[in-house]
Amino acid sequence: MLTNKDVAARLLAQEDIGLVCHRSPDGDTLGSAMALFHALSSLGKRVRVDCVDPIPRNLQFLAADFPEFIPSYRVAVDVAAPSMLGDPKENRPHIDLCIDHHATNEGYADETRLVNYAATGEVIYEIILELGAKISPTIATALYTALFTDTGGFRYANTTAQTLRYAAELMEAGADYNLIREQIYESKLRGQVQAEAEVLSHVHYYRNGQIAVITVSLDLLARTGVEEDELEGLSSLPLQIDGVDIGITLKERSDGSVRVSMRSSAAADVSVICREFEGGGHVRASGCRIWDSLAGAEQKLIAACEKGFF
Amino acid sequence: MLTNKDVAARLLAQEDIGLVCHRSPDGDTLGSAMALFHALSSLGKRVRVDCVDPIPRNLQFLAADFPEFIPSYRVAVDVAAPSMLGDPKENRPHIDLCIDHHATNEGYADETRLVNYAATGEVIYEIILELGAKISPTIATALYTALFTDTGGFRYANTTAQTLRYAAELMEAGADYNLIREQIYESKLRGQVQAEAEVLSHVHYYRNGQIAVITVSLDLLARTGVEEDELEGLSSLPLQIDGVDIGITLKERSDGSVRVSMRSSAAADVSVICREFEGGGHVRASGCRIWDSLAGAEQKLIAACEKGFF
Repeated sequence: MLTNKDVAARLLAQEDIGLVCHRSPDGDTLGSAMALFHALSSLGKRVRVDCVDPIPRNLQFLAADFPEFIPSYRVAVDVAAPSMLGDPKENRPHIDLCIDHHATNEGYADETRLVNYAATGEVIYEIILELGAKISPTIATALYTALFTDTGGFRYANTTAQTLRYAAELMEAGADYNLIREQIYESKLRGQVQAEAEVLSHVHYYRNGQIAVITVSLDLLARTGVEEDELEGLSSLPLQIDGVDIGITLKERSDGSVRVSMRSSAAADVSVICREFEGGGHVRASGCRIWDSLAGAEQKLIAACEKGFF
Repeated sequence: MLTNKDVAARLLAQEDIGLVCHRSPDGDTLGSAMALFHALSSLGKRVRVDCVDPIPRNLQFLAADFPEFIPSYRVAVDVAAPSMLGDPKENRPHIDLCIDHHATNEGYADETRLVNYAATGEVIYEIILELGAKISPTIATALYTALFTDTGGFRYANTTAQTLRYAAELMEAGADYNLIREQIYESKLRGQVQAEAEVLSHVHYYRNGQIAVITVSLDLLARTGVEEDELEGLSSLPLQIDGVDIGITLKERSDGSVRVSMRSSAAADVSVICREFEGGGHVRASGCRIWDSLAGAEQKLIAACEKGFF
């Protein structure tokens, strides 16, 4: 088992470090990588951050310029499986070290620092302190973003006393908390509001309302002018409905697949269902892709839930 | 200026204490009062909590039985103005002590402990520690509810490092954090989801989108079977739209009035506008009532905003 001290020693021994985020990057993978980027840069390391997908509009405030070089040492941050690196199988970079909080982490890296925290950002915070780097306002902002987004603004069940205490410390270290909140939760485009409203007017219920499904069609995205990744927040909504134990969000993609987000209350381990479709994640929050129509994917998932849980 | 020590001394000097919540009770007034009720009861005081309005469905988990008596000493908790007590003018109880965090507090009580915290629950926590009472899990749950609801689950701009640190301490003291989250954010009725979706499909924009208005008609409530107080969460939604500086939520009431909630970004002090209509509250979150139709109230408010801010 790697400790934070071990991780700090590995990083300090390197001169060139490449940090790698997971595809469809979220606040935790980006905030963690960016915080580590600034910390290691301040210690004189040459560092860059890579991701196969672009940074979403509402996380652009984390962006920075990186030096061009081929890293000799690669660290995956918040990446549970090689498939999440996004590159085609034959072209995946070798990962020397993985820092992650996903229980489903596949142990694909040479070494792995795996924690049972709400956000990877929490362990990155500990590692930066271990490195002896100063928690600048920029680093505090990146880490606060990681904690804030992976806990739904400290609302989700994964939030712990540690998460809140670290968040308090980061706020005191100068995290630009208002910027984060505004970018994450207060910058919905009119089209997003319209799209969300339409999606929520058509919830499908199964099993006496224990399962709720919402769907985002390509047609809806075209009509409202919204990008798929701008509807990330939707996934948490079905579970907010009284009596719902499994909330499923289906997004139609132009490549003929359906992107699935599953959320569950204490009752069900949705990572089991998602693994059936070659996905994975957390017990209460997992995802996968199904190559079918929206209706077809819905049918397959309901069948899998019926078989697995009821 | 009253200190927490003074407040504790006042409370310890009494045998019978009546705690009073504001009308349309929310998580902060109820959580604060219930926490203080349990703390004072544990110290051998005879205590009850009163409110002119019933406890909303999603805060029922805070309810308890109270002894029947006429309190000789009354403490208003989180009540900014006598009108918020809800009783008709001639019948308002005498308030000996007020504990509050509203900058607009009118100083109507004999003595007032006023703080500049995100939630009244934060100062109640300090007062309970000052009283020397144990923070039981029940008290921790009530206080966590106060902090959690008045900061929108620690998402709003009013959240401070202190709020997060107190929340961490309360979590460690046994606050039933999952219960709170589920009751506050994950127990929407199907009708609520439907009603919210309909409301958000019809946002009215003014001033190049700087003002956004949403309206809840009696007809909508009747069709979806939702009570007005079950749509509390709506008020924060208009402000989440990109470019919106003032978010206005209008709710039609059967008594011929319109209940107004105003929220603002840093740009505008909405308590000024609400005071024009005999309401009040915080700079960024205020309310009032207007005796007019939905459309009439909307027109009056937009006019007041145009005059006040642009």
